[in-house]
Amino acid sequence: MRELLEAVADGSLSPAQAQAQLQGYVTDDAGRFDAARHDRRGIPEAILAEGKSVEQVVTLAETALETTDRALLTRISDRQYRTLASSLEESAPDATLERRGSTVRVYTPAHEPPTLEATVGIVTAGAVDEGVADEAHVVCADAGATIDRVDDIGVAALDRTLDQVDRLREADVLIVAAGREGALPTVVAGLVDTPVIGLPVSSGYGHGGDGEAALAGMLQSCTVLSVVNVDAGFVAGGQATLIARAIDAARN
Amino acid sequence: MRELLEAVADGSLSPAQAQAQLQGYVTDDAGRFDAARHDRRGIPEAILAEGKSVEQVVTLAETALETTDRALLTRISDRQYRTLASSLEESAPDATLERRGSTVRVYTPAHEPPTLEATVGIVTAGAVDEGVADEAHVVCADAGATIDRVDDIGVAALDRTLDQVDRLREADVLIVAAGREGALPTVVAGLVDTPVIGLPVSSGYGHGGDGEAALAGMLQSCTVLSVVNVDAGFVAGGQATLIARAIDAARN
Amino acid sequence: MRELLEAVADGSLSPAQAQAQLQGYVTDDAGRFDAARHDRRGIPEAILAEGKSVEQVVTLAETALETTDRALLTRISDRQYRTLASSLEESAPDATLERRGSTVRVYTPAHEPPTLEATVGIVTAGAVDEGVADEAHVVCADAGATIDRVDDIGVAALDRTLDQVDRLREADVLIVAAGREGALPTVVAGLVDTPVIGLPVSSGYGHGGDGEAALAGMLQSCTVLSVVNVDAGFVAGGQATLIARAIDAARN
Amino acid sequence: MRELLEAVADGSLSPAQAQAQLQGYVTDDAGRFDAARHDRRGIPEAILAEGKSVEQVVTLAETALETTDRALLTRISDRQYRTLASSLEESAPDATLERRGSTVRVYTPAHEPPTLEATVGIVTAGAVDEGVADEAHVVCADAGATIDRVDDIGVAALDRTLDQVDRLREADVLIVAAGREGALPTVVAGLVDTPVIGLPVSSGYGHGGDGEAALAGMLQSCTVLSVVNVDAGFVAGGQATLIARAIDAARN
Amino acid sequence: MRELLEAVADGSLSPAQAQAQLQGYVTDDAGRFDAARHDRRGIPEAILAEGKSVEQVVTLAETALETTDRALLTRISDRQYRTLASSLEESAPDATLERRGSTVRVYTPAHEPPTLEATVGIVTAGAVDEGVADEAHVVCADAGATIDRVDDIGVAALDRTLDQVDRLREADVLIVAAGREGALPTVVAGLVDTPVIGLPVSSGYGHGGDGEAALAGMLQSCTVLSVVNVDAGFVAGGQATLIARAIDAARN
Amino acid sequence: MRELLEAVADGSLSPAQAQAQLQGYVTDDAGRFDAARHDRRGIPEAILAEGKSVEQVVTLAETALETTDRALLTRISDRQYRTLASSLEESAPDATLERRGSTVRVYTPAHEPPTLEATVGIVTAGAVDEGVADEAHVVCADAGATIDRVDDIGVAALDRTLDQVDRLREADVLIVAAGREGALPTVVAGLVDTPVIGLPVSSGYGHGGDGEAALAGMLQSCTVLSVVNVDAGFVAGGQATLIARAIDAARN
Amino acid sequence: MRELLEAVADGSLSPAQAQAQLQGYVTDDAGRFDAARHDRRGIPEAILAEGKSVEQVVTLAETALETTDRALLTRISDRQYRTLASSLEESAPDATLERRGSTVRVYTPAHEPPTLEATVGIVTAGAVDEGVADEAHVVCADAGATIDRVDDIGVAALDRTLDQVDRLREADVLIVAAGREGALPTVVAGLVDTPVIGLPVSSGYGHGGDGEAALAGMLQSCTVLSVVNVDAGFVAGGQATLIARAIDAARN
Amino acid sequence: MRELLEAVADGSLSPAQAQAQLQGYVTDDAGRFDAARHDRRGIPEAILAEGKSVEQVVTLAETALETTDRALLTRISDRQYRTLASSLEESAPDATLERRGSTVRVYTPAHEPPTLEATVGIVTAGAVDEGVADEAHVVCADAGATIDRVDDIGVAALDRTLDQVDRLREADVLIVAAGREGALPTVVAGLVDTPVIGLPVSSGYGHGGDGEAALAGMLQSCTVLSVVNVDAGFVAGGQATLIARAIDAARN
Repeated sequence: MRELLEAVADGSLSPAQAQAQLQGYVTDDAGRFDAARHDRRGIPEAILAEGKSVEQVVTLAETALETTDRALLTRISDRQYRTLASSLEESAPDATLERRGSTVRVYTPAHEPPTLEATVGIVTAGAVDEGVADEAHVVCADAGATIDRVDDIGVAALDRTLDQVDRLREADVLIVAAGREGALPTVVAGLVDTPVIGLPVSSGYGHGGDGEAALAGMLQSCTVLSVVNVDAGFVAGGQATLIARAIDAARN
Repeated sequence: MRELLEAVADGSLSPAQAQAQLQGYVTDDAGRFDAARHDRRGIPEAILAEGKSVEQVVTLAETALETTDRALLTRISDRQYRTLASSLEESAPDATLERRGSTVRVYTPAHEPPTLEATVGIVTAGAVDEGVADEAHVVCADAGATIDRVDDIGVAALDRTLDQVDRLREADVLIVAAGREGALPTVVAGLVDTPVIGLPVSSGYGHGGDGEAALAGMLQSCTVLSVVNVDAGFVAGGQATLIARAIDAARN
Repeated sequence: MRELLEAVADGSLSPAQAQAQLQGYVTDDAGRFDAARHDRRGIPEAILAEGKSVEQVVTLAETALETTDRALLTRISDRQYRTLASSLEESAPDATLERRGSTVRVYTPAHEPPTLEATVGIVTAGAVDEGVADEAHVVCADAGATIDRVDDIGVAALDRTLDQVDRLREADVLIVAAGREGALPTVVAGLVDTPVIGLPVSSGYGHGGDGEAALAGMLQSCTVLSVVNVDAGFVAGGQATLIARAIDAARN
Repeated sequence: MRELLEAVADGSLSPAQAQAQLQGYVTDDAGRFDAARHDRRGIPEAILAEGKSVEQVVTLAETALETTDRALLTRISDRQYRTLASSLEESAPDATLERRGSTVRVYTPAHEPPTLEATVGIVTAGAVDEGVADEAHVVCADAGATIDRVDDIGVAALDRTLDQVDRLREADVLIVAAGREGALPTVVAGLVDTPVIGLPVSSGYGHGGDGEAALAGMLQSCTVLSVVNVDAGFVAGGQATLIARAIDAARN
Repeated sequence: MRELLEAVADGSLSPAQAQAQLQGYVTDDAGRFDAARHDRRGIPEAILAEGKSVEQVVTLAETALETTDRALLTRISDRQYRTLASSLEESAPDATLERRGSTVRVYTPAHEPPTLEATVGIVTAGAVDEGVADEAHVVCADAGATIDRVDDIGVAALDRTLDQVDRLREADVLIVAAGREGALPTVVAGLVDTPVIGLPVSSGYGHGGDGEAALAGMLQSCTVLSVVNVDAGFVAGGQATLIARAIDAARN
Repeated sequence: MRELLEAVADGSLSPAQAQAQLQGYVTDDAGRFDAARHDRRGIPEAILAEGKSVEQVVTLAETALETTDRALLTRISDRQYRTLASSLEESAPDATLERRGSTVRVYTPAHEPPTLEATVGIVTAGAVDEGVADEAHVVCADAGATIDRVDDIGVAALDRTLDQVDRLREADVLIVAAGREGALPTVVAGLVDTPVIGLPVSSGYGHGGDGEAALAGMLQSCTVLSVVNVDAGFVAGGQATLIARAIDAARN
Repeated sequence: MRELLEAVADGSLSPAQAQAQLQGYVTDDAGRFDAARHDRRGIPEAILAEGKSVEQVVTLAETALETTDRALLTRISDRQYRTLASSLEESAPDATLERRGSTVRVYTPAHEPPTLEATVGIVTAGAVDEGVADEAHVVCADAGATIDRVDDIGVAALDRTLDQVDRLREADVLIVAAGREGALPTVVAGLVDTPVIGLPVSSGYGHGGDGEAALAGMLQSCTVLSVVNVDAGFVAGGQATLIARAIDAARN
Repeated sequence: MRELLEAVADGSLSPAQAQAQLQGYVTDDAGRFDAARHDRRGIPEAILAEGKSVEQVVTLAETALETTDRALLTRISDRQYRTLASSLEESAPDATLERRGSTVRVYTPAHEPPTLEATVGIVTAGAVDEGVADEAHVVCADAGATIDRVDDIGVAALDRTLDQVDRLREADVLIVAAGREGALPTVVAGLVDTPVIGLPVSSGYGHGGDGEAALAGMLQSCTVLSVVNVDAGFVAGGQATLIARAIDAARN
């Protein structure tokens, strides 16, 4: 404790870093950032950009970088991204930004990328599902997992699906994203003995649109699978990471 | 007209038969029976027993027999069936009763069974779907169609499904009944070039139970199919019959 | 096989065309296009433009043209259409574009239009239903069917409806589009012995708006009809085509 | 006031009757009965038997009889009816009980039946709608209206409907009861210039069952009509009575 | 008939006017206009501008003017209104336009305004309900009824309500518009013996918002009232007109 | 600690009592009873009998009595009550049972009834709401509050309501229970400056039945009130008790 | 009365002020403002700016200031606020405007701020809940309560929550705002013996989004709490104020 | 193949066993049993007894025993269980039946119980959740996993929860069952770095009852977890088994 306060006093530790070490979370203008989440929960606190002001997004990203050397942002708009990028050029000039769709990962040179000896298969039924799958993709990649991405193999053309089954069996855990009637996770889960996480996507129109039919269908699936909310790519990626890490721990 | 009234006068035509010929429908104690439905619509008026008193069911069945030589009853309870059977023993002693699940077909010797040169494939995903499929079965059989019934080939064990595809391709029109997530009609419709009618079944529990997930999934299907309401076996059978008859007419 | 690869080698067959012949589907930047859908299912894979980027729409349309000499696009925006048109001027200068509302059909001189000896009646209840009916119209016309289009005969002025019944009886199969309370398919189906496909439209406001009352009403219809999802003109057109083709096959 | 209290004192007025005259409502063991409702609102307070104990039903009926010489009970069970009948034999031996389905009307010789020079047309689409229509029937008859009852003319056999239009045009106000897709009120309201009250009935199964499709369809009707809740025969009858009475008042 | 055709031939009758007289409805580019609606149903066909193109709106309004000397338009946007006004300056320079909120009434000098000896009370709970009430207002005024408009007397300040009860009792029929919890129609209907039409308004946010709580509350009302759909001012006005006209007819 | 264990050893404290003092909760065959709830939360843990076996109910009640000298049970069936009563005759022969509707309160002579200088007004709209209000009644009475119960003053007869306003103003906090459209809490809350807790009741049928319209209406209320779930009399009573106790504490 | 009219005559009282004193409410161009609400109900009528025109907002605010020396406005847009501010510069140049998020409080020097000896704790689960909490904040502050605001202590990082429990126990009443799954009010209410008002927030996406999961969860809470509608910060603040004032009254 | 047929011929293999080895599934009177499911999917096909006749249940159990030496039955009624037990006494006298709530596991001496070096933690919030948790319990135990069962630690008494966290951290995967507002999985998942499967339970009444609030809350959880349908104990147990087996495989 004394040591830590002396580090703050001599400037080698910022007040935010000290608070993060003492309390786990850090209070800034945009709220309390849960700096200890990754250690406690295995998944970092992601910053959901949607619904936040540009200022809140930048402040939270900077706090995350300052205390954990890394920030994960989801559902970021183009405008939020541009401001974030230019703000970080000043506040964290050596940080690296990686963007995949509306998901962003930032890290400083101090960040030690984790290694994770496990493969997460990420599967989509159609082109419209790819943005949501990207969110899961970034989370799992950030955790160090190998990603096997298989796009656009919906059951309307069943050969597209069956052609990939052997490859899907290789993964340690599968995320299967689908909109409309959401039948792909059911069909895949009937063919492999891997844990499957169903990820419903808000495509489709009319009755059962906005992902509700896909969600209900996955919950009613006549095979075994667990499900996350509509468009919840981050949660699917987080759950796959936790499973992958448990497997990795058992391997090592 | 004169002729008809004379037939009533001399007793060779009952008043109900005369009304049926004049107006199309017949008024009895239990309502107006649409005796002309079969000629006008191609599908007879079925008597939905559920929600009717035993007396109403018997009266309507007798009116149907009197004016069209045949009666079709759906969702009949055991109690309703027993009373119907014993009532008909008196009022229509030469009538034949056929029962399949909760669907009943009665006809007198005067009924000329139609012939229909077409095959309706009736497919179920699981054992719980069979009662609803039976309703469709009776309607199509009553119309003279050949029925190819294929039970219990849900996609959880995809081989069960794929083993039957060649056979399914032989049918002129397909009814595919499924509960839970209702994926079977989508998978089947992706593999055949036959018109497919999706028939959702009220199995399943929890969110999307009572057939709602199956219905929404079939409406959202990424393949081409049309749908009837949950458990509406009669409607599915009627629609398949209309299609089969159009094909039969073109053949002949 | 050898032949096919040699055709690729000498440039008389593009790699995409070869993949389409070998696997049925073609992988491009925008996903996997199901080139074999028309042969397998009788209905081509349509490109749902809504929710896709302009680039994805153009890429998929070009792949469709390259491998099947034709492309069908639904729910296209003005902006997507303009870019598509100008892109095709370069990549497929001899292609013909036909647009009806938000539905587009493109074909090259190599496309052999099918012939289909059958009539699809397409009926609307009101002016707001016409855009959705257009989608069905294009699909059936593309399949070679004769279209008998009857607009704006909703039941509020029942004479408008009854005046057309004789004409509706002529069709081999009927699509009846209606929003609001969606009563027209029920009334029509009570008067003809033709298969009727109910097509609910997302008009109406307040409780049961967005087509939900129309859909529920058609599912509950006291006559026999099958239904597609709200605004699913493509599906209605596809199902009508499958029925029309079965009739055509029986005729010939 | 003095007079009234003296009447209580000499027994020519019961305390309940006095309270009814002073406050409008009467408090008994089963609650507060709104004895002034008929004078104030034109419709008596009906006793909804469903959900009440047999004792509450009897107490309220006796209070109603004591203070208004009449009682109207809806949704009464067989058991409640039997107890009511035998209780009234003792407490109100000269009362007359009239029962129509689950609706009951009781009155003493002191009750002066109102006269109402107006006709309420009560129409049903099918046999299952008759119980709900009966509730409206009793309310209007109790108010002295002439009832023109037309049963079982649903649109599946449109001739049944059209045959009755001239008769329906004669009514001063129409109640049209229908379950399933509930199209009958829309069709009728398109053909007459009479006020139409749509009365949805909880028949039908599957999606939109329990009267929800009928209610939504009537609310979305493309013709002009107003609606009451599912199975709310009492409310439909009350509203028709208010309209009929306004017409009657204008006539006289 | 001969006469009519000669009138067309000599130009004293346009083809549209002739079709209106012969068939009741008129077919133009924007659909079939039900010119006979007013005679048959007592309420003219209103043109719902929402969801229609500017061209469709103008065409339908011109057809209405040509065949019935009057047009009623609801849910018109500013842009639609401006184009309509400038179009009519050319095609119908002597027409008068009246606008109240988003409802518009147009008539030519040939239009003979009806007289209707009856008062419709139109009541709102709050300021947000006034636009919807305006729609009813225009319909009733167009029919010649006297309107008694009472705004902003919601039950949160019950004195505001009670202060107006005597005035409300004077009306022949009442329309009561309310959003949020929609309690005003219930309270009013408990105090008057006039027919009350509840008009739910899509105000409110959160659970039960968009008028759903108001609609459900009016359907569940413990007093007698009938209801129209959320924001359906036109329907409420039409139904009130039909009732008012029946009273007027009885008066005269 | 030592003391406590010695008390267990010499039998003056049961193991359950000791666990309750050490951990706050007690583990028995039917689960963990939260013996410290009353001290921590101000409201005892009530035993929801519905959905539990008779054995579980008895075990939990005995544990509650053993550790807190009192038990509160809600939604108890007749069968559960009879078994509980006879079981307690043996296990706790000096306990007193009080039952009000389906709510039961048991206490031993060791229970010191709390005093609470505050009045809770409990109001119902109609007779069907009384059972739910009873649940709140027992909770508040158990806490020592004075209860002012005012039954059956729904707004359909507004005089019934207004007659009681002065009395309602006397209470420190009000619970207002109502089913159907649930307007009473809104009207009451507009007339008093007391905190009002709306308690929706699952009466009513059709659309918005089962208390959903009442709940939505209270949530949308144009006056200030807070709400509990449908039929949640216990929660309403608990919240009123917490408010009453805060007032009592400020008084003393 | 005479006095009041003379004050109007000599200009020392405006007509609006006189009407407010006589009737309680004031009628202006934008409706009836309930000037007596604060005296009668303890909470002033707030002006919900959303859905009103700029002119209506300004008019109502001016009426409020004129008759009660203060105005409270919620859900105000930037455009509405700017116009209000500049209008008041002319009409009420000495008024003070305070804005917190989209909630605005205006008062003139004549306004005597109330004092209220009680603390309202206002708690949020995350940054997105703060705008809704601000609405409650302004209402309670306007009433003179001490506010203890504790932001961003959602249960995902439970230490953040537990660290604040002692502080939360100090408040007289708690408002706990939470979106997503809305678990925070349940956890807090399990730890304190203070009345807790749950305030669901419309954050979250997918199934149960828009605050519906949070609302349902709070209604189902296994602890005791009452709830307001989604985003109803004003109502939560009003209810907390009523409770705080009751406590304050008991204290003094 | 030849060998297999000879085994059938000499009776050492039954036809069902042969079909199971050849096709994977077996056809009997009650449907097609997926004998290969365990090998292909890692989880055996369970027989959902609910909705099946007693005969179907017995037939399917016997087929399962005959082909896989084991049967798993869920949602079995007492009547079904008794008949099953007595039937098996004859057909499989050496079989062992184990029942836990409504879940049953049967195996013959030939069944080799699997070993699985992994611990599944199964947690419930309250006593009502235990039946559903039992279903998961049996599935995991059948797969050979070690079960750590922790009952009745809902968040209303947070100490009950926190006391168990260290123990919960020991598990390889957690199933957390909760009804009502379903907050427990969120709180647990915020404290451990183990994969958590949320299992909503159909307890609770009123709005969000039947498990819908719990399901929506878990889908909206602000921590990372995946979810199964309401009461889907079998699916939760199956998914936990697949994860446990992947960990076990990595360990060995």
